[in-house]
Amino acid sequence: MTDTLKRALLLLHGPNLNMLGQRQPEIYGTTTLDEINQRVAARAQSYGVKVTALQSNHEGQLIDWFQQYGAEIDGALINAGAYTHTSIALRDAISGLNKPVVEIHLSNIHARESFRHHSMIAPVCVGQVAGFGWRSYLIALDGLLGYLGLAD
Amino acid sequence: MTDTLKRALLLLHGPNLNMLGQRQPEIYGTTTLDEINQRVAARAQSYGVKVTALQSNHEGQLIDWFQQYGAEIDGALINAGAYTHTSIALRDAISGLNKPVVEIHLSNIHARESFRHHSMIAPVCVGQVAGFGWRSYLIALDGLLGYLGLAD
Amino acid sequence: MTDTLKRALLLLHGPNLNMLGQRQPEIYGTTTLDEINQRVAARAQSYGVKVTALQSNHEGQLIDWFQQYGAEIDGALINAGAYTHTSIALRDAISGLNKPVVEIHLSNIHARESFRHHSMIAPVCVGQVAGFGWRSYLIALDGLLGYLGLAD
Amino acid sequence: MTDTLKRALLLLHGPNLNMLGQRQPEIYGTTTLDEINQRVAARAQSYGVKVTALQSNHEGQLIDWFQQYGAEIDGALINAGAYTHTSIALRDAISGLNKPVVEIHLSNIHARESFRHHSMIAPVCVGQVAGFGWRSYLIALDGLLGYLGLAD
Amino acid sequence: MTDTLKRALLLLHGPNLNMLGQRQPEIYGTTTLDEINQRVAARAQSYGVKVTALQSNHEGQLIDWFQQYGAEIDGALINAGAYTHTSIALRDAISGLNKPVVEIHLSNIHARESFRHHSMIAPVCVGQVAGFGWRSYLIALDGLLGYLGLAD
Amino acid sequence: MTDTLKRALLLLHGPNLNMLGQRQPEIYGTTTLDEINQRVAARAQSYGVKVTALQSNHEGQLIDWFQQYGAEIDGALINAGAYTHTSIALRDAISGLNKPVVEIHLSNIHARESFRHHSMIAPVCVGQVAGFGWRSYLIALDGLLGYLGLAD
Amino acid sequence: MTDTLKRALLLLHGPNLNMLGQRQPEIYGTTTLDEINQRVAARAQSYGVKVTALQSNHEGQLIDWFQQYGAEIDGALINAGAYTHTSIALRDAISGLNKPVVEIHLSNIHARESFRHHSMIAPVCVGQVAGFGWRSYLIALDGLLGYLGLAD
Amino acid sequence: MTDTLKRALLLLHGPNLNMLGQRQPEIYGTTTLDEINQRVAARAQSYGVKVTALQSNHEGQLIDWFQQYGAEIDGALINAGAYTHTSIALRDAISGLNKPVVEIHLSNIHARESFRHHSMIAPVCVGQVAGFGWRSYLIALDGLLGYLGLAD
Amino acid sequence: MTDTLKRALLLLHGPNLNMLGQRQPEIYGTTTLDEINQRVAARAQSYGVKVTALQSNHEGQLIDWFQQYGAEIDGALINAGAYTHTSIALRDAISGLNKPVVEIHLSNIHARESFRHHSMIAPVCVGQVAGFGWRSYLIALDGLLGYLGLAD
Amino acid sequence: MTDTLKRALLLLHGPNLNMLGQRQPEIYGTTTLDEINQRVAARAQSYGVKVTALQSNHEGQLIDWFQQYGAEIDGALINAGAYTHTSIALRDAISGLNKPVVEIHLSNIHARESFRHHSMIAPVCVGQVAGFGWRSYLIALDGLLGYLGLAD
Amino acid sequence: MTDTLKRALLLLHGPNLNMLGQRQPEIYGTTTLDEINQRVAARAQSYGVKVTALQSNHEGQLIDWFQQYGAEIDGALINAGAYTHTSIALRDAISGLNKPVVEIHLSNIHARESFRHHSMIAPVCVGQVAGFGWRSYLIALDGLLGYLGLAD
Amino acid sequence: MTDTLKRALLLLHGPNLNMLGQRQPEIYGTTTLDEINQRVAARAQSYGVKVTALQSNHEGQLIDWFQQYGAEIDGALINAGAYTHTSIALRDAISGLNKPVVEIHLSNIHARESFRHHSMIAPVCVGQVAGFGWRSYLIALDGLLGYLGLAD
Repeated sequence: MTDTLKRALLLLHGPNLNMLGQRQPEIYGTTTLDEINQRVAARAQSYGVKVTALQSNHEGQLIDWFQQYGAEIDGALINAGAYTHTSIALRDAISGLNKPVVEIHLSNIHARESFRHHSMIAPVCVGQVAGFGWRSYLIALDGLLGYLGLAD
Repeated sequence: MTDTLKRALLLLHGPNLNMLGQRQPEIYGTTTLDEINQRVAARAQSYGVKVTALQSNHEGQLIDWFQQYGAEIDGALINAGAYTHTSIALRDAISGLNKPVVEIHLSNIHARESFRHHSMIAPVCVGQVAGFGWRSYLIALDGLLGYLGLAD
Repeated sequence: MTDTLKRALLLLHGPNLNMLGQRQPEIYGTTTLDEINQRVAARAQSYGVKVTALQSNHEGQLIDWFQQYGAEIDGALINAGAYTHTSIALRDAISGLNKPVVEIHLSNIHARESFRHHSMIAPVCVGQVAGFGWRSYLIALDGLLGYLGLAD
Repeated sequence: MTDTLKRALLLLHGPNLNMLGQRQPEIYGTTTLDEINQRVAARAQSYGVKVTALQSNHEGQLIDWFQQYGAEIDGALINAGAYTHTSIALRDAISGLNKPVVEIHLSNIHARESFRHHSMIAPVCVGQVAGFGWRSYLIALDGLLGYLGLAD
Repeated sequence: MTDTLKRALLLLHGPNLNMLGQRQPEIYGTTTLDEINQRVAARAQSYGVKVTALQSNHEGQLIDWFQQYGAEIDGALINAGAYTHTSIALRDAISGLNKPVVEIHLSNIHARESFRHHSMIAPVCVGQVAGFGWRSYLIALDGLLGYLGLAD
Repeated sequence: MTDTLKRALLLLHGPNLNMLGQRQPEIYGTTTLDEINQRVAARAQSYGVKVTALQSNHEGQLIDWFQQYGAEIDGALINAGAYTHTSIALRDAISGLNKPVVEIHLSNIHARESFRHHSMIAPVCVGQVAGFGWRSYLIALDGLLGYLGLAD
Repeated sequence: MTDTLKRALLLLHGPNLNMLGQRQPEIYGTTTLDEINQRVAARAQSYGVKVTALQSNHEGQLIDWFQQYGAEIDGALINAGAYTHTSIALRDAISGLNKPVVEIHLSNIHARESFRHHSMIAPVCVGQVAGFGWRSYLIALDGLLGYLGLAD
Repeated sequence: MTDTLKRALLLLHGPNLNMLGQRQPEIYGTTTLDEINQRVAARAQSYGVKVTALQSNHEGQLIDWFQQYGAEIDGALINAGAYTHTSIALRDAISGLNKPVVEIHLSNIHARESFRHHSMIAPVCVGQVAGFGWRSYLIALDGLLGYLGLAD
Repeated sequence: MTDTLKRALLLLHGPNLNMLGQRQPEIYGTTTLDEINQRVAARAQSYGVKVTALQSNHEGQLIDWFQQYGAEIDGALINAGAYTHTSIALRDAISGLNKPVVEIHLSNIHARESFRHHSMIAPVCVGQVAGFGWRSYLIALDGLLGYLGLAD
Repeated sequence: MTDTLKRALLLLHGPNLNMLGQRQPEIYGTTTLDEINQRVAARAQSYGVKVTALQSNHEGQLIDWFQQYGAEIDGALINAGAYTHTSIALRDAISGLNKPVVEIHLSNIHARESFRHHSMIAPVCVGQVAGFGWRSYLIALDGLLGYLGLAD
Repeated sequence: MTDTLKRALLLLHGPNLNMLGQRQPEIYGTTTLDEINQRVAARAQSYGVKVTALQSNHEGQLIDWFQQYGAEIDGALINAGAYTHTSIALRDAISGLNKPVVEIHLSNIHARESFRHHSMIAPVCVGQVAGFGWRSYLIALDGLLGYLGLAD
Repeated sequence: MTDTLKRALLLLHGPNLNMLGQRQPEIYGTTTLDEINQRVAARAQSYGVKVTALQSNHEGQLIDWFQQYGAEIDGALINAGAYTHTSIALRDAISGLNKPVVEIHLSNIHARESFRHHSMIAPVCVGQVAGFGWRSYLIALDGLLGYLGLAD
C-alpha cells in the first residue's frame, strides 16, 4: 500500500528519546516512541504521505540520515532532544537539506533549565512546536503538511 | 447554536496584529485577523467549543481581558506579539489565570532579531507554536483541545 | 470627616493586584485589595491623612494618576507589581512628581525569579518595603509618615 | 487654510511629555508641549505641510495612533520618551507604517543613565535628533521635510 | 522586668554601623547606634519582646552570634552593612537559623552604587526594609512582630 | 568678507569621510565632502558665522585641531566617523575644549552593526544628529547655532 | 567467580581516555586505562561488586551504554572527559538512568582552562572527584560504594 | 601513642560547619562535626598520620591556622564552606602553604545555587571531593594520603 | 609509487563536508570533496608526501582517526566544520597528537554568524586558513609543508 | 622590468612590524620585514604582479595608503598588527576599497591573549591566514592570486 | 623622640602579608614585613611623621583599626592584600575615615589573574601604587606626604 | 653637563597632556607639562640620569618614539592618557622594548568612569602609579630608579 503514497517525510528523534515512556515520565509522559511513530504514520498516511521514522543517540547518525534521505523527501520533522541546544552540525545539515523542517519538543523547553531555552536549529527550521507531549508530533505534522500544501 | 457549546476558550491577539494582512506581508502573510478568528472559531465549534477573540494594542487591556474572562473559560490561546518578549505583567496575568494557555506566533521568532528569541510568557504557558503563519493558530488550537481532553 | 484631614497621600496598585486574595494565594496571601486599602486608610486617618487608593493594569493609567494627583498630595505609596521591573516611564513619572514615594511589595521579590530582583523605580523612591504581605503596606505607610514628619 | 496644505505629518509625544515645562526643567527646559507643537506646526505650514500633534502616557495609544493616521500621512516625528528604550511594540508599529519616521529627544540621552543610551525604535527610523531641547523638534522636522523632498 | 518578657529577638548590626552618627551623616543620618537600639528595645518591650542588640565589624562574629542566640530567639533583625552584598557565609547562617529574619538598610541601597543593589542574604530573609534611616529599624521590627503574630 | 564674520565654528570630519561620494554610496550618498563643506559654510555665513572645515584619517590630527582652534571658536561640529565608537582621546579633547560640540552622522548608526550603536563622544557633546545624509550637517549646524543663541 | 558477585557497576570513560599513559602525561599521568580498570575492578570485587568498564570517543556510544546497562546496574562511575563540559545529551542519559552516578576527573579541572571549570553533568550526579590522577577512580568508587551502602 | 605518629595533617572546617547535624540535615546530613573529625582521625592514625581538626566562622582565623600549622604539616584538608566561593585571602594562604591541600564539600556544590558552582580555592588545591556527605572527608583523606605516598 | 613517498599527512573533513558542491554552493562553492582531496594529494605528492583523506559526520570518528593515524603521520590538516566551534574533545585529540595540525575553512568564518567566529581547536593548531574556498586546502598544505621543512 | 608587470597589489604592515626580527623573536621569528617584502615581491613577480609594500605605526597612515593606492591596485594583503583587533576605521577603509583584501598574521592569534582572538577587519576581508610566521605572507599571496584568477 | 613627631600615619597590612619574605618570593620578594615597616617608619620620621604599622588576616580587624586610629591620624597607607578585590566593608571604613588613604601593592596586580585587576577600595583612596615590591611602600609614603603638604 | 650623565630614561606623554594646566584643572591640576618635565629632569639628574620628555596626541608617534629611543635608554615612564585604555599597539611597543616601563596617571583612574579602570598596557609594565597629580611622575621616577638599582 505504501507504494501508492505520493509524498514522503523523514521523522528523526535525537538522544534518549528511545527511552520515552520509561525515562522521567513526569516530564515526558508515558507514551512510547513506537506509539508516537505509529500515530504520526497513520495520520500522514491519511494524507497520502509516507513517514520514515528513525532514532539515534549519535549526533553524526542524525546528520547521516538527513544526507541519506534528503533527495527523496518533501520535508522533515525533528525532535533533536539535547542536541537541539548545542549542535551547529545538525543546523548545517538542515540548512543543506533545502527542504522544510519542523522542530518538535515534547516538553515546554522554555519553562525548563535556561540552557534548554535556546535552540541552535530553530533559525533554519520552518517553525517550532513545544510542550504538548506526544501531541506535539501530530500538530507539528499538521503544520508541515499545511506548509507543503498537502493539507489545508 | 453557540449556546449549546459546552466549553469556552479565549483567543487574545496583542499589538499590531489588527494590521495583519496589511503590515509586512513578507513576514506575516496576507491573511487578515478576521479570517484567522473565523477559522479558529469554525474549527473549535466542530468540537463544541466557543471562542471569544479579542485584539488590543494595550498591554493593560490584554490583562484586563484575562481577568474578565478568566472564570468562564477552559483555556486560552495568545499571540502576545511584541509584548511576548517584555511583559512580566502579562506573564503574571497568565499565572493568575490557573487555566492552560498556549503561546502562538505567526513567524518563527527564533529566526528573527535576537530580542525576539526570548519569551517572557513561555514559562507559564503549556506550550508554544511558532512559524506556521495563520496555521499556527489552528494547530495551537488542536494542541490545546488535546491538552484539555476535548480532542484526541 | 475626610475634609478635616490636612494631608493627602496617593496609593497606587499596579497590574494584577486587583486579583489579590484570588491569584496565587501561596505567594500573595488571601487578603483582598479592598481590605488592604481600608487598613491603610484607617491607619492614615488616625494621623489626619487622607489616602486615595487606585488600581490599574495599564502602565499609562498609573502615570496619568501620578500626574493628575501630583499637585494635591504630600507623597505616595506604590506597589507597581510587574511594572516595577521594566517601566522607565513610571520611573520618570515618579521623578517628575517631586514628592516622596515609597515602593511596596507583598512578596520578597529578592527571593523570587531573578528578573524580579531589580527595581527600575527604586532609585527614585525614598525606600522599599518587601516581603511582609499586606503588612508591607502598613509599615511602608509608617515609613512615609515618619519621613514626612507626620508620625515619629 | 489647512485644507490647502498638501502634505501631512504625525507628531507623537510619549509618556510624561505633557508635563514639559513643569517636570525637571533642569533636564527638559521650560518650554511647554503646546509651545513646541505650535512652533512645529508653524514651521511645517510654511512648507505647506499639516501636522497632527498628539500625546499619551499609554504605549498602546501611541500604537493606535500610528495605525489610525498611517494611511493619510507622509511621515512622522516621535519623541517616544521612556518607551524609546523598551517598546518593541512601538518599533513594530513604526515598521508597519512604511512611512519615514524621525526619532526625537529633548535631552542628550547618550549622556544620561545607561538604560537611556539604547533606542529600541532607532533601527526602524530614518534618523535621530537628540540634545537640542525644543529645537530638537524643529531640526528633526527640517530633516524629515528634506528627506521627503519637501524642503532642500 | 525583662524576665517577664515572653519573646526574644536578636538585632545584629554589621561593619561600620558602630560609627553611625559620625560616619557620612549625609547618607546615614545623625542618629547613633545606641539611640537606634534604645528605640527598637523600647518599642519591642511594649509588645512584651526583649531585644538583644550587638554590633561587629567581623563577618565571623555575626555568624557566631546567630549560632549562639539561635535557640533562644523567635526571630532576628539584621543590618548586615557591606556584608549584605558579599557574604554567603552569613546567608548560610541565616538559613541554618530556621527563624524569621528581616533585612534592614538605613539608606536606599537600590539608589546607590550598583554593587549595593544586590543582597546575598535577601533570598533567605522574610523581607527587606530600606531607605527610611533609623526608622527602617522600627518599621522592620513592626513587620517582624506582625509576621510572628505578636502584633497585628 | 569673511573678516566681517563675528563668530567661528570648527567642522571636523574623521576617517574615510574624504572618500564621500565614492565610498559605499548606498550607505553614505553621492554628495562629496567639498559639497557638504560648501553648504555648511554658506548657511553659516548667512548667520554671520565662519566655518573652518578639516578632514583627517588620523585620530591624533583631529585632537591636534581641537587644541589648535579651541581658543578662537564658539563651538564645533564633528563627524568622527569610525573614531566615534572607540576614541576616548577624542572624547577627552572635546571635554577639554569647553565649547559646545555637536556630533553628526550621515547614516543612522543605530540601524547598523552593533559596534556602531555606541558613541564614546556623545556624553561630552551637546547633542547628536544621525541618519539624514548630508542634511545631517545642516540641521546639526542649525541646532548648534540655536544653542549658541545665533539663530532662533 | 564473577557470577557470585551480587552487585554491578558501570564504569564509562569518555573521549581520548583510551590514550591514557601516552597523551600529555604531565597532565594525566603514565598509568594506562587498562591499569585503572583493573585496579577499580579488583577493589570493587573485594566488596562483591562487578564492574563493567567501557571507553568510547563517541558521545552517542556513551549514551547507548547507559541505556543498555541501565537496568542491570546499581550505579555508575563516569569520566566523561571533554564531553563533561558540553554534553546535555549525556546529562539527560544520566538523569534517565535513575541510579547514582559519580563524576570523575584525573586532573583538577578547576585549575585548567576556564571552559573546563563547568560540568554539564555534575548537577545530575551524586558527587564529583577531581585531581587525584588514577586515584580519583578508586576514591570515587569508595564514595559510590558508601553511598550505596555496600561499604561503610 | 600520638607521639609515635610520623606525619601530620591539618583539617580545617569553615563557617557554619560546627552546626553540622543540626543545620539543614536534608542538605548536610545528621552526622556531627565531632563524629567526622573522629572518623578522619581514626582512619589517618591507621596510616601513622596525626590530624589536627579545627573549625571557625572567621575567614581570618582559617588563614591564621594555615600560617600557624604550615611548617609542621605534610598537607591539609579543607571544607571552606561559604568562603570557598569568595575568599581570595584563603586562596593566597593555601598558595603560600606550599603543601598539598584537598578541597572537600559535603554536598554536591555543582548541583546547588549557581554562586556555589565556582570555587576560588580549587585552582590552588590538589583536587576536589564533593557530594558524598561525611564520606567526602574520608575519601578526600585517602586521596591526600595517596598523593603524599602514605597510602597506595 | 606511493611506497616511495617518505612523509605522510592526515586530511580530515568534518560534518556535512561530504555534501560539498551540492550544499549551499553560494557559501561553499561547487567543487566536490573528492576534487579537493585529489588536488591536495597531487600537490603533496609533488613534495614526496602521502595524504590520507577521510570524512565523517561523527565527532567521535574524527577523534578515532586522529588516534589511529597519529603514530604514522608527520602532521595533519583539518576542516572540522561545525565541530570547530564546539568540540573540546577534538581539541584534546589534537593536543594529544603531538604533531602539527593546521585548521582550514572554506568560507571566511569571521564574516558569518557570531557562533562561527570562535574556534575551539585553533589554540592547539599551528595556524588557521579561512575564506579561500577549495584553495584554502592547498595553501594550508603549503603552510604545513613549510612548517615541517618539507617545502620552502 | 617592473613596467611590464600587468597587475598590482598593496602590502600593508601595521604597528611594530618594522621591528620584526628584533622584537620578541620567540613569538614572531627572526626574519625581518625587508626579507618578507622581498620574498613576497619575488613570488608575485613570477606571476606578473607588482607589490607595493609599506609599513606604519600610524592607524591613519594605513588608511591614507588604502585611499591613495586604491584606484591602481587589484587587491591587497594586510597584517594590521594590533590595529586588527580595534580599528573600525581600518575596516571602513577596506570596505571602501572595493577590492579583495587578505588578512595576515605571523602568529596564531587564536592561541594568544583573548583580546587578540577577535579581528575587526576579518568580516570585510576575503580570508585570513594566521600562524605560519613569514610563510603566512606567501600563502596569503597565493590565496589572493588564486582569488583574482592570476594563479590556479 | 617619637613624642616630638607632629603628624601620624596608619600603615595597615592585610591577609598573608605577615608571611612576606617566606611566601612565594618569586612574586612578593624576600624582604620581610618588619623590614618594610622599619624602612617606612625611618623615612616618615625624617619628615617628623610617626607611623603605626599593623597587620591582620581578619577583615574585621582592619576595619576595627581604621575606626580606632581614625581620630588621631592624618592619613593612612594600606596594602589590603586579597581583601582589596572583595571588601566593600573595608571600602566603607575608608570612606568613613575622611582622611586620605593610599593603596599599595607589592606586585603589579594588573599583570596577574583577572580577579586581581579590580580594586574595591581604589575609588575611595587618593591613589594607587603597585608593582615596585617593598619600594611600593616608600614611594606611596612619599605620595601621601606630598598630598598632605608634609613633603614637596 | 648632560654628557656626563651615565643613564637615560624616556618620558612619554599621551593625548591631551600638552593641555595640562589649562584642561579641566579640577581633575588634572594647574601644573603645566613643562613644569612636570623640568621637575622630573631635575630629580633624575641628581641621580646621574638624563630624561628625554616627549608628548604627542598620535598613538603612532608614541610607538615611533619607543622604537627610536629603545636602544639607548635604560627604561621609560609613560602617561599614555586615553590610549592607556585602548591601545594594544602601544602595549606591543612596550613589550618589544624589553626595558622596564612604569605607567603613570595624574588622576586616580580607578575612581573615574568605568572605561578608565582598565589599563591595556599595565600587564607589560613594571608597575603603576596613579592619583597623586604631578607628584605621580616623581614617585614613579623614584620607583623606576629603584627598580634599575640607580637609587635605593
